[in-house]
Amino acid sequence: VCVSVSRRVNEPEESMTSLQLSAKEEMLEKFLDAAARGDLSQVSTVLSNVPSLINETGHSGWTALMLAARNGHHHVAEKLLLLGCDKFSVNSSSQTAYDIAKFWGHRHIAGLLGRAADGCERILPGADLHPHENYFSRETLDRQSGKRTDKVWLEAKQSDSETVYLLFSNLSPMVRTQQEDGSEAQGDMKLCRFRYEEVKDLLLKPSTVTIFLGIEKTKNPSSSSSSEKTESLSEPPVWFAINTDEDAAALLERCREKNCSFPRSPNRDLLKLSEEEAGVVAQARSVLAWHSRYSFCPTCGGATKMEEGGYKRSCLNSECRSLQGVHNTCYPRVDPVVIMLVIHPDGNQCLLGRKKVFPVGMFSCLAGFVEPGELVSMAAGETGVKVGPVQYVSCQPWPMPSNLMIGCLAVAVSTDIKVDENEIEEARWFPRQQVIDSLFRGDRSVFVIPPRQTIAHQLIRHWICMNSNL
Amino acid sequence: VCVSVSRRVNEPEESMTSLQLSAKEEMLEKFLDAAARGDLSQVSTVLSNVPSLINETGHSGWTALMLAARNGHHHVAEKLLLLGCDKFSVNSSSQTAYDIAKFWGHRHIAGLLGRAADGCERILPGADLHPHENYFSRETLDRQSGKRTDKVWLEAKQSDSETVYLLFSNLSPMVRTQQEDGSEAQGDMKLCRFRYEEVKDLLLKPSTVTIFLGIEKTKNPSSSSSSEKTESLSEPPVWFAINTDEDAAALLERCREKNCSFPRSPNRDLLKLSEEEAGVVAQARSVLAWHSRYSFCPTCGGATKMEEGGYKRSCLNSECRSLQGVHNTCYPRVDPVVIMLVIHPDGNQCLLGRKKVFPVGMFSCLAGFVEPGELVSMAAGETGVKVGPVQYVSCQPWPMPSNLMIGCLAVAVSTDIKVDENEIEEARWFPRQQVIDSLFRGDRSVFVIPPRQTIAHQLIRHWICMNSNL
Ligand SMILES: [Zn+2]
Ligand SMILES: [Zn+2]
Repeated sequence: VCVSVSRRVNEPEESMTSLQLSAKEEMLEKFLDAAARGDLSQVSTVLSNVPSLINETGHSGWTALMLAARNGHHHVAEKLLLLGCDKFSVNSSSQTAYDIAKFWGHRHIAGLLGRAADGCERILPGADLHPHENYFSRETLDRQSGKRTDKVWLEAKQSDSETVYLLFSNLSPMVRTQQEDGSEAQGDMKLCRFRYEEVKDLLLKPSTVTIFLGIEKTKNPSSSSSSEKTESLSEPPVWFAINTDEDAAALLERCREKNCSFPRSPNRDLLKLSEEEAGVVAQARSVLAWHSRYSFCPTCGGATKMEEGGYKRSCLNSECRSLQGVHNTCYPRVDPVVIMLVIHPDGNQCLLGRKKVFPVGMFSCLAGFVEPGELVSMAAGETGVKVGPVQYVSCQPWPMPSNLMIGCLAVAVSTDIKVDENEIEEARWFPRQQVIDSLFRGDRSVFVIPPRQTIAHQLIRHWICMNSNL
Repeated sequence: VCVSVSRRVNEPEESMTSLQLSAKEEMLEKFLDAAARGDLSQVSTVLSNVPSLINETGHSGWTALMLAARNGHHHVAEKLLLLGCDKFSVNSSSQTAYDIAKFWGHRHIAGLLGRAADGCERILPGADLHPHENYFSRETLDRQSGKRTDKVWLEAKQSDSETVYLLFSNLSPMVRTQQEDGSEAQGDMKLCRFRYEEVKDLLLKPSTVTIFLGIEKTKNPSSSSSSEKTESLSEPPVWFAINTDEDAAALLERCREKNCSFPRSPNRDLLKLSEEEAGVVAQARSVLAWHSRYSFCPTCGGATKMEEGGYKRSCLNSECRSLQGVHNTCYPRVDPVVIMLVIHPDGNQCLLGRKKVFPVGMFSCLAGFVEPGELVSMAAGETGVKVGPVQYVSCQPWPMPSNLMIGCLAVAVSTDIKVDENEIEEARWFPRQQVIDSLFRGDRSVFVIPPRQTIAHQLIRHWICMNSNL
């Protein structure tokens, strides 16, 4: 099967203007036809004469790249990409060249279009499982939960000279900034690491909360501690986190590094950490936040004590019901949040909303805490749009303070938007092309998508990268 | 393309025994060949002579049904099913006839094989979104969360004669059993519903907790209250749930119905409710359990008061930090639980484990609470098996007391099992065929799968119904 370019059929009449146009149109047709036939030399010749044709569209919005993708002409697709053609444009059925190659089974071309620096990893649900690159989701440490009840081991490790301590003040970790110009790039911020000798006075204070984070993973030494002490053959370092109420300025003086601080707006600043460190902070910050809010037994109001390396609090009142059986009152709280990308029934638009607190121009997926006994499918309620079955895409911890983000897609079964103004400021249907422009072309004129560390960004990218309406 | 039956090629030698066999083998070959060619009359003729051939396999374990499915012969497949052939058997590549029909694009045959009373709804991830039929997931009530802050409305509805009250004692709802023989069928248990006049004395007691559940949905009148009062044109009834510490026997006397009780083991008994009522119980039980354990402020230990129809508790200590900003201490707790079906790298076995508390012979998916900052992929840790990327399948509330089950699949990247005996008693790889036998044939000899209301059951079914290793 070969799709040909039957443009002229649709244009039987010619006026003066169209006669002038027709020279260019004829050239375009020749060009598109060559791409569809896989005639590499003709494609090259035409483009060297009229380079502007490269992204021109013919019938139904098909570009040369789409036609080459449709008919499996790898060498033509390669040449077009080399010459800088736009691989993200969509035809009038909202299909990209990738969608077309994929649908028609031309894997080598789909691979060519899917790969690449733009990072549009093609996530195919089902058999081809791809990991989502979720921020706060890298496991740098092995949690070793079995060690939490081993008091002797924990105490020995606390005073071990190899042990790594992270310092938190008011639930913010001490970090140092690489660049002094306030750059926003990820990896520009690093956690300050302390040794036992540097924090042992803090450990003794009753108001200090110390939690066991885990043991450094040995498999990827490159991603582990940047310290030079790799000569030892002993167990890899154990990590702890400390939250203290000491004066922040005094704490900063403990560090040998320059440019240290406790980020004031963790929601934004923590996104500058590397993924490895972000995962550690997600764990530490969530558990420390729990201790900060849950010092008393919610069942009887009595005092509690910390146990199991920081992963349990038990009531000190021996009569308390919370001590009979296993109850969640004793364990850290994690709040599930549903974050949902709602897709228009036509498959070519998605529903995004903005809250007043968002940066200017930013729109994101709908999100809400899951109530007891509640269904995930109710998350879109604040826009008045009803959704059908939910497809789950990804989960990601989010330490603000301790959420588990459940990312999903759902197709709308109604399209009228009626915003609950207590929840969101505005909600709109955005066409696929606008989303692609914002996501891959950095076009911020229509709207801004949340940064790539967020699960909202990953969901939107997932939708764009999925086969669309084929 | 047509797959033919080249069995004889593999059997060049003939002995006395094989000569005796060869008559039957020849018949089998003729039969399989007819199925592959779509020769309906020959298939019928052979089967009327030798009915036992219907499930016999040829080369690579292919049955007649698989061959018909492979080559798109709908009428032959229909005939074979009519004559009772086994559609769940798998070939030596662990493919069912359905898998084969689906892979080769014979949708009408896939539909024929997928449909049907056995309920193996074919759930295809990606484009074909199908709802999972999850227990505790039916939304019978519209929660109307906006009404929770409307005290006047809530009070008026509490004394409305149409309002429905559910009575809980020790977090178990009062139910009546339809069958006196103790049958276990779903729908055999119904919630007892009370009117204002019957419970108004309880409402006045300080120890009673009353929560607003929502308004009956009007769209499906058949699934709403079974009461005969459908003549009224007013607002549909509002539902509340009451938990009281009154004597259970005295409470049971309030009901006009016979055979009422408070189930003692809600984990098992509540599965006898209809799906509509189970969803209501999931919501009510979770919120009531929260009130029962969280009467005191965990931040300061002070007393709290209930607000917003039961969906908030605020500290009575005006100095408390929990009153500054929004904190999760004030809202019902929902604990996310990951439940995971781990699939062997060969695609044909799944990892199931059993806990000591399970009924005899039952094996289920691996499950565990999600810790702060933890990744879902760590749920398989208790078996020592490491997993790769996680595919999310479904979410389901589970009111024991207030969990959100996140169901997912993951492919193992290691296969050696080393059980953490604190967590599970045994874990094993089960071949696809054994799972099919237990799931669809009710063969409980090897092992028993959890009941269909559980998300574990749904996950296992999902895996079986997915295209396998094609
Ligand atoms: Zn207590
Ligand atoms: Zn308080």
